[in-house]
Amino acid sequence: MSQFWSPIVHKLDPYVPGEQPQIEDLVKLNTNENPYPPSPKVTKAIVEAVDERLRLYPDPQSKALRQCIADYYQVDMEQVFVGNGSDEVLAHIFQGLFQHDLPILFPDISYSFYPVYCGLYQIEFQTVPLAADFSIQVSDYQQANGGIIFPNPNAPTGRLLSLSDIAELLGQNQTSVVVIDEAYIDFGGESAIALVNQYPNLLVTQTLSKSRSLAGMRLGYAIGHADLIAALVRVKDSFNSYPIDSLASVAGMAAFEDESYFQKTRQQVIDSRDAMMAKMTEMGFDIIPSAANFIFVSHPEYDAMALAQYLREQGVIVRHFNRDRIAQYLRITIGDKAQNQRLLSVLSTYR
Amino acid sequence: MSQFWSPIVHKLDPYVPGEQPQIEDLVKLNTNENPYPPSPKVTKAIVEAVDERLRLYPDPQSKALRQCIADYYQVDMEQVFVGNGSDEVLAHIFQGLFQHDLPILFPDISYSFYPVYCGLYQIEFQTVPLAADFSIQVSDYQQANGGIIFPNPNAPTGRLLSLSDIAELLGQNQTSVVVIDEAYIDFGGESAIALVNQYPNLLVTQTLSKSRSLAGMRLGYAIGHADLIAALVRVKDSFNSYPIDSLASVAGMAAFEDESYFQKTRQQVIDSRDAMMAKMTEMGFDIIPSAANFIFVSHPEYDAMALAQYLREQGVIVRHFNRDRIAQYLRITIGDKAQNQRLLSVLSTYR
Repeated sequence: MSQFWSPIVHKLDPYVPGEQPQIEDLVKLNTNENPYPPSPKVTKAIVEAVDERLRLYPDPQSKALRQCIADYYQVDMEQVFVGNGSDEVLAHIFQGLFQHDLPILFPDISYSFYPVYCGLYQIEFQTVPLAADFSIQVSDYQQANGGIIFPNPNAPTGRLLSLSDIAELLGQNQTSVVVIDEAYIDFGGESAIALVNQYPNLLVTQTLSKSRSLAGMRLGYAIGHADLIAALVRVKDSFNSYPIDSLASVAGMAAFEDESYFQKTRQQVIDSRDAMMAKMTEMGFDIIPSAANFIFVSHPEYDAMALAQYLREQGVIVRHFNRDRIAQYLRITIGDKAQNQRLLSVLSTYR
Repeated sequence: MSQFWSPIVHKLDPYVPGEQPQIEDLVKLNTNENPYPPSPKVTKAIVEAVDERLRLYPDPQSKALRQCIADYYQVDMEQVFVGNGSDEVLAHIFQGLFQHDLPILFPDISYSFYPVYCGLYQIEFQTVPLAADFSIQVSDYQQANGGIIFPNPNAPTGRLLSLSDIAELLGQNQTSVVVIDEAYIDFGGESAIALVNQYPNLLVTQTLSKSRSLAGMRLGYAIGHADLIAALVRVKDSFNSYPIDSLASVAGMAAFEDESYFQKTRQQVIDSRDAMMAKMTEMGFDIIPSAANFIFVSHPEYDAMALAQYLREQGVIVRHFNRDRIAQYLRITIGDKAQNQRLLSVLSTYR
């Protein structure tokens, strides 16, 4: 606390990311990173770009990267916004598209950064409870609002909403922006990008941190109607002219160009997830059906926080959210074969 | 314009950075980039970090980089904030430290991003005219204010304010935050970082884009009292957990570690600047004394915009600001020997 702070700073309740401990031999299943490295073509492309050109500013509009993403999803470059991770993209969305008189809506169990953005930009929000099975009921969103946002699949539950449900929501809600936050969509869902040319109020965000194994490079994007993208560009150009560094841009393009690596690794994650779900179900865990690279699990006989603590003592970190409705759940990232095996063996020793 | 935009978006007047044209053989003297490449140790360090670790999120607190910068300037890590370029650092400063009832103050001729940030965060500002010789008169800032900011050396003039003048200003102004934006300080000034332990309301920002030749990597920082840094951390953690990507962090540390390369290249820029000032003075140009890696020049017989156009036709880009008081000036970045020579030859053909 300081007299020098802007008044709003005192009231902020910042987001707390999963920890990034520097411990050897840790099985790190707490931040939904991809267990597989980025494509070798990505690392090669980065290395080839590390030279004297780094003295120059990057393209402030990131046109090459945006065109690459546009081509991949068959939209126009003017429909693509890129940011320094999808968290930055979301921040600009909250400021540029969600500051209206009515409160915005999001699920009571959802990405915990959303209320933080609301605090930063003084946006009113109202949470909409998930159903008892943690599903999103689109009819619950039929109320006046300044915007709607949720992850699909939802986080931290992993549960998917179908594209037809999303289309239904959009049909009912045409006067405010609907943001589908698809950080995990590549692990089992159909992207709502297919709907952006039908609904001018639909914005879809994605990231290269999960399915494209580039959490370390910080790249996210939004796709929607050019008018929505224009708002984000105006905010970005009033905040930071050059959010995407030269190497991140090169990495992103190379990642979209190596489709076979992307398909192979995401399928491996999906297969591992399904195997883990089967095995942990056998061990008595209740698991929310997951379309993500993580599973959200509880066990009728175990206290979730105590189990998380035990796992940690055994060198396996998972994420526990000490919050209403989900305090008895753990969110566990799908690792590679060895990591998953290690988790299963540690779990088998828990009594 | 769109019904979906937050009302504030309609009113934004975004910053326009100098262009980054993709033209061969262009002499690019318009965005104050360093003519020399980053240290070979920097490019080596980056290349060594390009591997499977990119699948992991970076340290959200960027502790290693902050400690490295803290050691370099002999302050504590808690006195160092890092951001995705100093533009992002400045944005967080405006939001976190400048949103008060009183208007903030900055010079009428200054970094043109400042009023843009004010628009984004709805901060009132009042500009304080520079003296006729474009110098900052600290006595002009003796008025009630919500904060004070200016670049030192100032941009786009290049004129330096002495450390004793800054100390005088701080002595007079202890109830609001004073930000000294030292993007260009390494090219000829004394840093006000020397004063941060004396004045709890002083914040100094710097960048690795200019004197450390890393514009392409996007790294800036602020140094000041831990309470001021805490405000920036709270804003950052409410905006984007991981603004600094893994490679940028490595690049920044390597840059601070290669002191001899830094000293050599900045001295080369200083020497070139002084030589350019001498030669252009001989050609009849009036030049504001510069402590930066650019010079701000006018000529009694030439129209600045016409000259800029001529230079461009000849393959040399400089920056012209079509604004009050400075419309007859050009800001010219100091290039390497060949670039400077090319500028001089083109100028010698102008009539």
